[in-house]
Order: sequence, then C-alpha cells, then structure tokens
Amino acid sequence: MHVVELIRKKRDGGALTDAEIAFLVAGAATNSIPEYQLAAWLMAVVWRGLNAEELHSLTTHMRYSGRVLNLSSLQGVKVDKHSTGGVGDKTSFLVAPIVAAAGLYVPMISGRALGHTGGTLDKLESIPGYRTQLQEDEIFAVLSDCGASIVGQTEWLVPADRTLYSLRDRTGTVESPFLICASIMSKKLAAGLDALVLDVKNGSGAFLKKEAEAIHLARLMVATGNHAGTKTAALITNMNQPLGRMSGNAAEIVESVEMLRNHRHHLTEDLRRLSLELSGWMLYLGGKVPSPEDGVQLAEELLISGLPLKKFGCMIAAQGGDLAWFESPQWLHRPAYQHPIKSSSAGFLSRVDCDQVGWAVQRTGAGRIVPGEAVSAHAGVETHKKVGDHVTLGETLFTIYVEDEARLEAVAAILNRCYTLSEEPPALDPLIYQVIA
Amino acid sequence: MHVVELIRKKRDGGALTDAEIAFLVAGAATNSIPEYQLAAWLMAVVWRGLNAEELHSLTTHMRYSGRVLNLSSLQGVKVDKHSTGGVGDKTSFLVAPIVAAAGLYVPMISGRALGHTGGTLDKLESIPGYRTQLQEDEIFAVLSDCGASIVGQTEWLVPADRTLYSLRDRTGTVESPFLICASIMSKKLAAGLDALVLDVKNGSGAFLKKEAEAIHLARLMVATGNHAGTKTAALITNMNQPLGRMSGNAAEIVESVEMLRNHRHHLTEDLRRLSLELSGWMLYLGGKVPSPEDGVQLAEELLISGLPLKKFGCMIAAQGGDLAWFESPQWLHRPAYQHPIKSSSAGFLSRVDCDQVGWAVQRTGAGRIVPGEAVSAHAGVETHKKVGDHVTLGETLFTIYVEDEARLEAVAAILNRCYTLSEEPPALDPLIYQVIA
Repeated sequence: MHVVELIRKKRDGGALTDAEIAFLVAGAATNSIPEYQLAAWLMAVVWRGLNAEELHSLTTHMRYSGRVLNLSSLQGVKVDKHSTGGVGDKTSFLVAPIVAAAGLYVPMISGRALGHTGGTLDKLESIPGYRTQLQEDEIFAVLSDCGASIVGQTEWLVPADRTLYSLRDRTGTVESPFLICASIMSKKLAAGLDALVLDVKNGSGAFLKKEAEAIHLARLMVATGNHAGTKTAALITNMNQPLGRMSGNAAEIVESVEMLRNHRHHLTEDLRRLSLELSGWMLYLGGKVPSPEDGVQLAEELLISGLPLKKFGCMIAAQGGDLAWFESPQWLHRPAYQHPIKSSSAGFLSRVDCDQVGWAVQRTGAGRIVPGEAVSAHAGVETHKKVGDHVTLGETLFTIYVEDEARLEAVAAILNRCYTLSEEPPALDPLIYQVIA
Repeated sequence: MHVVELIRKKRDGGALTDAEIAFLVAGAATNSIPEYQLAAWLMAVVWRGLNAEELHSLTTHMRYSGRVLNLSSLQGVKVDKHSTGGVGDKTSFLVAPIVAAAGLYVPMISGRALGHTGGTLDKLESIPGYRTQLQEDEIFAVLSDCGASIVGQTEWLVPADRTLYSLRDRTGTVESPFLICASIMSKKLAAGLDALVLDVKNGSGAFLKKEAEAIHLARLMVATGNHAGTKTAALITNMNQPLGRMSGNAAEIVESVEMLRNHRHHLTEDLRRLSLELSGWMLYLGGKVPSPEDGVQLAEELLISGLPLKKFGCMIAAQGGDLAWFESPQWLHRPAYQHPIKSSSAGFLSRVDCDQVGWAVQRTGAGRIVPGEAVSAHAGVETHKKVGDHVTLGETLFTIYVEDEARLEAVAAILNRCYTLSEEPPALDPLIYQVIA
C-alpha cells in the first residue's frame, strides 16, 4: 500500500477503505510512516472530512493500536464521563463519586491542563501524594475498593493517538471534528466502557465556540460510541462563564469536596446542577434507572446522603493521596498572594469573556501553554459574580491567587477587560442547550 | 513567527504576508522548518490556493533562496523555453539552436524523465561524453561560443524548490497549479531571463489533461513571469499523441539532428511546426522581430539555412559531447532488440492514449519511476501513424526498441491497447490550442 496514493485519495475527496485506514494507523502507532506523510493526510482530512465508515474505522484501529484496559474480571457496569474542556470544570470530582456511590464503576482516564482549559490530573495532583499514573492492576484495585479511579493515560493505551495528537498540535490540524472525535473516542473505548456521557462545552470558554460545531462533534461522538457498542449520549452545555466559583487546581478540589459535603451556594449552583445532570445520564445509560430524570433524582439523593464524599476520600487514599486536609478542605488551597479585581462601574453582569478568564487562570501559573510545563497547585481565579448578578461600583468581581507575585499584573490586565455590565438584567442562557442521544 | 499559526492561517483560507512566505521558504531552503510542518502547509495550499500576491512572494523568495545564475556580463538578450512535459517532446533541441542562430542567448536549465514524461537531460546524455552538470563559468563559456547551453539544475540554484519538490512528491501535494507555477517559475527566473516562452501541454499525454487546468496554470505562470520583469507567454499545445516520430533518448536526438538538417517527413511535421512557433515567440519576446508571425518566419528561414545545426554541434562539443556520429546520426541509436506492433484491424487512427504510450516508453527502460534510476539510451518507441492517418490490417503502428529483451512483452501489452481506429476520418485537434500572453 502506497501512503502517497492514500493521501491523494483523501485529498481528492475519496473515502479510504478500512484496510487503508488500518495501514495508516499502524504506521502512526509504530512510527513506520514518516510524520510528513501523516501530516499531509491529516490536513487532507481537515479539508475533506471523513464519512461514517472512515470515522468508525479510524476510531476502531486507533482504539486497538496498543493494549486496551482489561476490566472484564470486574463484575458490574463501567461508565464514564468526558468533557471537551472548560474553565472551572470540576464535574469529574462530583460525577465519579456519585455514580460510584450508586454501585457502578467509573474508570476515568483524564487529561492535563493546556491553553485556556484546566486539567483534571493537575487538579488532583494538588493533593499531596496523589498518584495519577497507575498500573492496570492498581486501577483494578482502586475500582474494586472505591468504585471510581481517576488516572492519567498510560503509555500502552492508544499509542496511535499519541503520535497523531502530537503531530496535529504541530501542524495546525487539531480543529477537525472527525479527528477530535477519533482521538477522544478511541481512548474512551479502549477503557472498555458500557456507557459514556459526553459533556460537549459550547460558548466563549469552550474549544468549540459555535453551537453548530459543538452539535456536529457531539453527533459524531455519539454515533461512534454507539456503533462500537458503548451506550453514548452527549450534553451540549454552557461554557460562557467559569463553572462554579473556583478556577485553578487545589481551589477546585476544595470546592468539589465542599459540594460533596452538600454545601450549597448561589455561585456553585451551575456546577451542582450540571454534575447531577451528567450523573443522572450516566446512571440511566448504565442501566441503574429507567430514565435520565430518575437518574438525576437518584444522583441528588446520593449527594445528600454523603456516600459520594466517602467514595472520593476512598479513591484519594487508594491512589496514595494525603487525607489530613479532608475535614478542613480550605487548608489545601494556600496561595501566597491574592488580589481583587473590582468593578469600575455598576450594573448587571451581562457577559464574561470566558476564554479570557481561562487564559487569566493559565497566566496565574495554574495552567500551561506547552505540554510538560509545571503548574502551580495554589494559583487560580475566584469568580464572585455570575452572569445576571447585579454589581455595584467597586465591588469585587474576581480574586486572583498566585504563588509568584510578579504574575499578578498580567492576570489583572486580562480580568479587568473580560466582563461587560449592562443597565438591564441580561437574558440568561440555559445551562444545558440540548442532549444528543 | 510561529509556523503552526501560518499553517492555520492558510488552512482557514487566509492569505500569508510576504514576510510570512519568506519565513517558510527560508525554512525550506535551510531545512530549519520540519518537513511535517511544510507538508501540512503544502496540503493547505493545495486546498486553499494562493492569491496573486502570495504566488509572487512564493516565487520570488524561492528564486532567491540560493544563488542565482549571473549572466549579466553576457551582453545580449537571454531567452528560454520551458515545457510542462510530454511524450516525444524534443522541441528544446530545435528551439535552442534556432534562437541561438538568431543571435540571442538560450541558457536552458532542463530536467530529467519521470513517470510517463521524458527528460531533456537524459536524451542529451545519450550522446557520449555530453556533460549536463556545468559550473557557472562553463555555462557562460558555452553560451559565449555557441549561443545555447542546455544543462541540469545546479546544487546552489533554488534550494527551496529542491526541498519542497521532493516533499510534494512524497505527500500527494504535486498537483497544485500554484505550487507547480512557483516551482517552475522560481527556477526559470533564477536564470536571469529577459524572456520566456512556456509550452503548456494539454491532453491525454500531458500532466494536465483538462484544458481548463492547462489554461489556469499558463495564466499563473505568465502573470508571475511578467510581474518579475521577464516577458512571458504561454502556448497551450496538443499532447494527445507523441510529438514527432521517436520517443526515447538517443532516438529523439537523432530525429532532432535530422530535422536540423531540414529533413522533412509527414510524421514529424507537428514537431517542426511547434518548434517554429515556440522559436517565433521567443524571437518576438526577445525583441528580435516585431511580431510572433515574423518570428516564426525568421525561425523557418534560419532552420533552412543550416546555422542552427552548427549551433547544436557547437553546444554538444563545448559540453564535452562526442560528435563522430553527427554526420550519420542514426549511428547514435543502436537498440539491441526491436519489435513491431501491428494493427489488428483497418480504419482511421482516431485516438491514441498518449499517457499509455508514455508509460510504454518508460517501460522500455527509456524512463524512470523514481528519481535517480538509470535509463537506457537506446530504448524507446517509434510512432508510424499519426491521428487521422489510415491504417490497413497488419500495418505497423509502433516499433518498440529495447536493450533488454525481457521488457518487450509488457511494453507490447500496453501499446496493443492504446489506440482506437474508426471507419470515418476523425476531426483533427489543432496543434496549438491558444496563446496566453
């Protein structure tokens, strides 16, 4: 099989066969096809897209490009949630314990912060001792004991994606819904899930800013998951302002643990609602309840019961994390410096440039621009007002937390121009735009 | 400047600035930009094209990516002809001596056979001793003495094209009129020409089989040349059957020398006519005559005078070539085996699959599939009938010439199915479809 012929076929709008895609994926996994040829093929895919058969072939061959996670000896339903990435998005720390509390297994393979979006693993690593790189038998043990395990990707899982993702990042070929779908779904399917709920973020703080793009990606992923035998649904959700109150690493763990203690606050109601909706869909697709609505109700009952808090503590301890702070979670978040951003006028908060807030969080030191950079556990941004809230002159809109004082100025400059006030209360967008199932 | 941002800009349909294109070309010339990034950019260019400014920038920066040929101390007009490649296309061996005979200089940098098209350098190298790799001072000396010099590309001329052309070949990004234009024109302009005539082949034996594609490429090249200060015109010419009688290496030199001796034959009238038209345009653009028609007339007078034959002999000798065969040119072409392809029916030759004839020539050993392969000097295919000619049952249509008898069968199989006979004489296509000036 000649790689150039395959590139030309896709370039001219043709569809590659299953065998041709298998050849390309194997070449990526084993580095036997040069990167310049893969790069040309990737750009041709950005241009021409993939038809349904090609997308299923690509996802399947990527899924099996290395070893898959074998949890078949774990009796029970395995279900996971995946987010396309947002600002202040800490639903994983609520969803995983809630669904585990219902008796389902949640083997969650998560990622790291990049650009303006945060990373689940970075947040968990703000807990002293917490290990995100586990062996298969360790993941198995944590799931057996606690019902949920949140870990990083292993070396042997989906090696083709490692090659292709890294190459896409360097060749301007990230933004293809087909390539995004195959990258996400190949990794999720390699974990051997019975059900999967996707949180596809849409809005100024999301990777996909246009609604049509979010819906397209969601449809591709739902079709791909269901085709592979994993019950899959997607929620298109609002990412026009940070989710909850805290954006950072330790700060988000603190907020999550407080919510698991059933503390409620006006500023975190969006986080609570979204976590319950996602949990409800996971419980429904996992066969625990007859409808998503029943799932949401069960999720809320479980949250109030306190059992998810115990599941979360179990998981942290099982993965080596210190729990000394667990009764006083604020202890975990100890920034060296903090600085308020005050409103320069009065009115209703009508719009937040959530993308810019995400970059502000990154600039505090909580995020990274290039993979591999160290992040600060204690840095971040606190949100004091939600869209629709009234703000008085001089009232605090954000608090910046940093470990390195020199970072304050740049972050403040971003935050000072990332919001809009209006005289009239703005129309409020829904939290969940639609469900694709 | 971030390469990924430049790739993304082109991917999204934007136009790169002159500085941005300069950066990419310098990166290609010095190998400081990885091939996978250049490949992604090339595919984005295939997709999105280039606007006029981008094309001029790309051509200009490629032209100056290495040293340029400095012939400024050669007093006089420098003019060249370039063909996009065909089957049996030997016009260079007529055009260069004719125009040199008119007192203009023809510094012609030519290429090698690849795929179904022949290569001027391979044909010349069938002359014992002929050197195609000359230093700048040697080219200068040959031009001074003989008026014409046909040589290969030097290492230091347009290094960016060497990187990009090789990469395009391996990444399915050859077929972009913008990239083809920049590749051809950067090399031609680096030779410091006053005028340039392009022979853009169109038809079944051409690289560009569709008329609209040939016209588009011709317009791009003419605009690019004139913009750079080189008077440029393009002839869109018929490549639906081999040009002249012989397709191969030594056989084409023999045919050319016979034509320079003013031998005429029904089977070579197309070659004679096209060579005179191309020469006429070169003489016109070079300022020697007031119109292309006057140029064609002068070219024919010169051809009949015998002076071009002397110029050709002068050039061959000056570049190290043996001339012992010059008075008996048939001596040069000494194939070990020959085999006739006879017509299986009677009728008018209505169509030749010229692309397939080209591949048959390649399979005789006269051409190559991969750059760097050796070619046979004596292999080739002789055409005995032109489109429109009447053919009787059993009459010879082609003669195959090979040095390796084992090649005969495969070549015969191609030639036996590459022609169509009809009861009525076919309508004849013009030799020159149009001129773009």
